[in-house]
Amino acid sequence: MDTRTLPDRDARAAMPPSRARALFAAGLEVPTTGWSAGYAQANLIAVPRELAFDMLLFATRNPKPCPVLEVLEAGSVRAPEGSAVYGDPGADVRVDVPRYRIWRHGELVEEVPDVLDHWRDDLVTFLIGCSFTFEHPMTEAGIPMRHQDAGRNVSMYRTSTRCQPAGELRGPLVVSMRRVPASQVADAVRITSRYPAVHGAPVHVGDPAQLGITDLDRPDFGDPPVVEEGDVPVFWACGVTPQAMVLESRPEIAITHAPGHMLITDAKDVVYAVP
Amino acid sequence: MDTRTLPDRDARAAMPPSRARALFAAGLEVPTTGWSAGYAQANLIAVPRELAFDMLLFATRNPKPCPVLEVLEAGSVRAPEGSAVYGDPGADVRVDVPRYRIWRHGELVEEVPDVLDHWRDDLVTFLIGCSFTFEHPMTEAGIPMRHQDAGRNVSMYRTSTRCQPAGELRGPLVVSMRRVPASQVADAVRITSRYPAVHGAPVHVGDPAQLGITDLDRPDFGDPPVVEEGDVPVFWACGVTPQAMVLESRPEIAITHAPGHMLITDAKDVVYAVP
Repeated sequence: MDTRTLPDRDARAAMPPSRARALFAAGLEVPTTGWSAGYAQANLIAVPRELAFDMLLFATRNPKPCPVLEVLEAGSVRAPEGSAVYGDPGADVRVDVPRYRIWRHGELVEEVPDVLDHWRDDLVTFLIGCSFTFEHPMTEAGIPMRHQDAGRNVSMYRTSTRCQPAGELRGPLVVSMRRVPASQVADAVRITSRYPAVHGAPVHVGDPAQLGITDLDRPDFGDPPVVEEGDVPVFWACGVTPQAMVLESRPEIAITHAPGHMLITDAKDVVYAVP
Repeated sequence: MDTRTLPDRDARAAMPPSRARALFAAGLEVPTTGWSAGYAQANLIAVPRELAFDMLLFATRNPKPCPVLEVLEAGSVRAPEGSAVYGDPGADVRVDVPRYRIWRHGELVEEVPDVLDHWRDDLVTFLIGCSFTFEHPMTEAGIPMRHQDAGRNVSMYRTSTRCQPAGELRGPLVVSMRRVPASQVADAVRITSRYPAVHGAPVHVGDPAQLGITDLDRPDFGDPPVVEEGDVPVFWACGVTPQAMVLESRPEIAITHAPGHMLITDAKDVVYAVP
């Protein structure tokens, strides 16, 4: 698709999820931040049926980095009819994400705009919550999202904290970091705590060294952070954790989204809020 | 065990979970309400490994009736080391529950004090949250727990609402009902909403007929409710739902706890609260 026909910022924000997915299915390869405002975006990982129980158990045991929004049964390209998350009868998870990653035996072998050529009828697809969902209510509460203001991707880091393993699946916790003014840290905790289905409260506030992070300016994923005097680094569990698990656990095949290129779901962000 | 040696009410409330489980393992068969105050109690269901993915998916898709607290891998009799829920090295899920039910092809065939003779190395055990956890904070907030005051079990009902199926597993939603004074319904909603990991907010407030319940005085499980003028029936998703699923889905074998005879976990109730 010709990117000269890319919808403008307002049109992207106002676009219904099914229409945005149709553009990505047609070949548009762009990050999804700012698209379909108010709808939850999801991390994606698909693994063979024989690993599906271990993957779901890994997610269940590590709900902060891997909050499961929906699971597509083996070979299915959409969620069951009636799913509020991704039950659209026109959905096709093989094409609806702007860019995918193909992993073989833990190696990233390819980034592709669709996975029609890699699809297998034994693949089980997991949709995992994304912190984009709670960035909006933080912004509404007046907490600056420094990376958004600078037009950057959020900074993400591999940590020395281990996830709870499940069967053969194991790996480190990956976190996203947002610098928050000291006077607003409590608000950031309070607001994100209300979204347990999309990473929830921070896992760590302050000293990065305790997470085994030696240099905040050199993130493992995403862009370097914006530094403002008086900000405190606040760390949330991150949906890139399954990709770090794939790197270490080396399943025969796994398919994920490419960072920042999420699946836009049909579920409103607000449904994931608790009082 | 001789029930003349049953610890008194205060001793039961103060007893550490591991010690309570040791008494049940020694053969004591009593309901667990009031034991080990402040610790979460869990519903239990074990199914063969080949059904484990579908069971975990059923729970994931129906998180209000089936909030997963922990999963024990195939053949394991306790959670992995380090589990805050049930990682006690002395734990043994085959004996730690006061009374179990054995189900074959969807028929309840036996109630037993331990399942040593029924155990199989391919059984995967799921621990599912229980509404006992949020009864305490409701009581603290001054909401009367009518059934507790009357020394009864809570009233539970099969509904006409269907759970989201997973693979071959399907069944109706089961709810527990508590009558709440009209002036305290909002508090009951607000407080239980803070516990999404243990059934969370009510699924229904008021008219039982809309859930397909024709007579509140004849519950499908537990005891008949206590009726007070001006109370409103409030319904929460219930951890007996997996047993209703077993009845309908007819797996070759399933093991569950007997109603009211829960697994007392090592996790404090407070860890399941969100702000």
